[in-house]
Amino acid sequence: MTGQEVRLLARTGQLTGPTPGLALGYLQANLVVLPRDLAFDFLLFCRRNPRPCPLLDVCDPGCPEPRAVAPGADLRVDLPRYRVWRYGELIEETTDLRAWWRDDLVSFLLGCSFTFEAALLRAGLPVRHLEQHRNVPMYRTNLPCVPAGLFHGPMVVSMRPMTSYQAEQAAQICANYPLAHGAPIHLGDPEQIGIDDLTHPDFGDPVEIRSGEIPVFWACGVTPQAVLMQARPSFCLTHAPGHMFVTDRRDEELQGKWFLESET
Amino acid sequence: MTGQEVRLLARTGQLTGPTPGLALGYLQANLVVLPRDLAFDFLLFCRRNPRPCPLLDVCDPGCPEPRAVAPGADLRVDLPRYRVWRYGELIEETTDLRAWWRDDLVSFLLGCSFTFEAALLRAGLPVRHLEQHRNVPMYRTNLPCVPAGLFHGPMVVSMRPMTSYQAEQAAQICANYPLAHGAPIHLGDPEQIGIDDLTHPDFGDPVEIRSGEIPVFWACGVTPQAVLMQARPSFCLTHAPGHMFVTDRRDEELQGKWFLESET
Repeated sequence: MTGQEVRLLARTGQLTGPTPGLALGYLQANLVVLPRDLAFDFLLFCRRNPRPCPLLDVCDPGCPEPRAVAPGADLRVDLPRYRVWRYGELIEETTDLRAWWRDDLVSFLLGCSFTFEAALLRAGLPVRHLEQHRNVPMYRTNLPCVPAGLFHGPMVVSMRPMTSYQAEQAAQICANYPLAHGAPIHLGDPEQIGIDDLTHPDFGDPVEIRSGEIPVFWACGVTPQAVLMQARPSFCLTHAPGHMFVTDRRDEELQGKWFLESET
Repeated sequence: MTGQEVRLLARTGQLTGPTPGLALGYLQANLVVLPRDLAFDFLLFCRRNPRPCPLLDVCDPGCPEPRAVAPGADLRVDLPRYRVWRYGELIEETTDLRAWWRDDLVSFLLGCSFTFEAALLRAGLPVRHLEQHRNVPMYRTNLPCVPAGLFHGPMVVSMRPMTSYQAEQAAQICANYPLAHGAPIHLGDPEQIGIDDLTHPDFGDPVEIRSGEIPVFWACGVTPQAVLMQARPSFCLTHAPGHMFVTDRRDEELQGKWFLESET
């Protein structure tokens, strides 16, 4: 399947489940939709924190078409499942945003870890939570994001255990994907970044760390979600966890890029 | 002199002239200040057009301190000369913005060509307008910028004549400076990008093109100014031409970077 085929299934109501594993090789993205009066702060927050918040595309106010990554797509119907938030509280889960849409809404698409995990697997490196069929373990750190207006808070990281040698290879591979969180932000001692107990992640599931392995930490796309929930914006729309937007771009296109330019 | 020393001279009224040649090796920047209600559109415009509009730093609303490039500096007094605009009309030139400052103003600093021209000179490549003691010739093209809200219009380019071999070297050098307009956007035939007559630039002065040379075109920092003047925002502050903000960052720090992160 292509990204467009996945989107069509979502648009026609035939796909309402999660997207990992669908249209392999096509770039998937996190969705955040905010009213225009918060859009400057959020855009600035993402710009100031490119590791946890790598921006793939930003739409014009009121426009649901992400022209840089999927011209012709409609962000209101092309994801399998959404969440609707008011003042930081989840008020509805839905498969169609059209009833919630407003002319002042600005859509942001952010890169996610699927891209670099696929690259790690291709290189024969372990991705433990995939081996163990779990969600990746994620932790709040003591590393502050650079604030912007309403938006501030600690960086959230994901963790994958590896040997030191594997971690070095992983760092080299992931540095090529700045729009998918880039190289690890920390290796080894979790306490140095404010994590007390690896067996109790703040989000996701714990995974096994084997003898000879160290924990390797990446900036995580849950950071903007945590920051958003803490900021309690009057109104916000997001994808439902795991129910991502599948673009027309290929994972490989992210290599070495800090921007995905539109074709206009 | 350092960037800080130049800024202190400007702040104390001892420097009111242009900055080229001052604090050599320190990154200089264009200044654009807009009301917050236009800041999202302008930030998005710069993001969508990174070649002509490479963003070095964006301040919080009301805050005149560019923390990423010059912590402690004050953009209201640290440039030697400013321009004040209303609805696209120049209404005043001043050496102090404090009387014009408002809590809703957002400051943007953009990279400029001085950085890559210094690198070209170090490599022994010709920079004709400097040899001829003129302003660089600049031309409106038929290449549209990607629009964002109020902001749209054609890309403006600067031109430097070189042999094909020199142009290739220049392209390699400049590609290392994406925050200073990057590699040339066009080589050779000016008509292909909508320029009819090289001897009549739209801005700046014409320069000599010698036998065996071709015109080499770079995206130019006058693009955002032309776009701003066409958009006629209710209020806008900028540096006066040639009277730039001198940062604490060194030109070399731009190499290979798409972002200058702050130290916070």
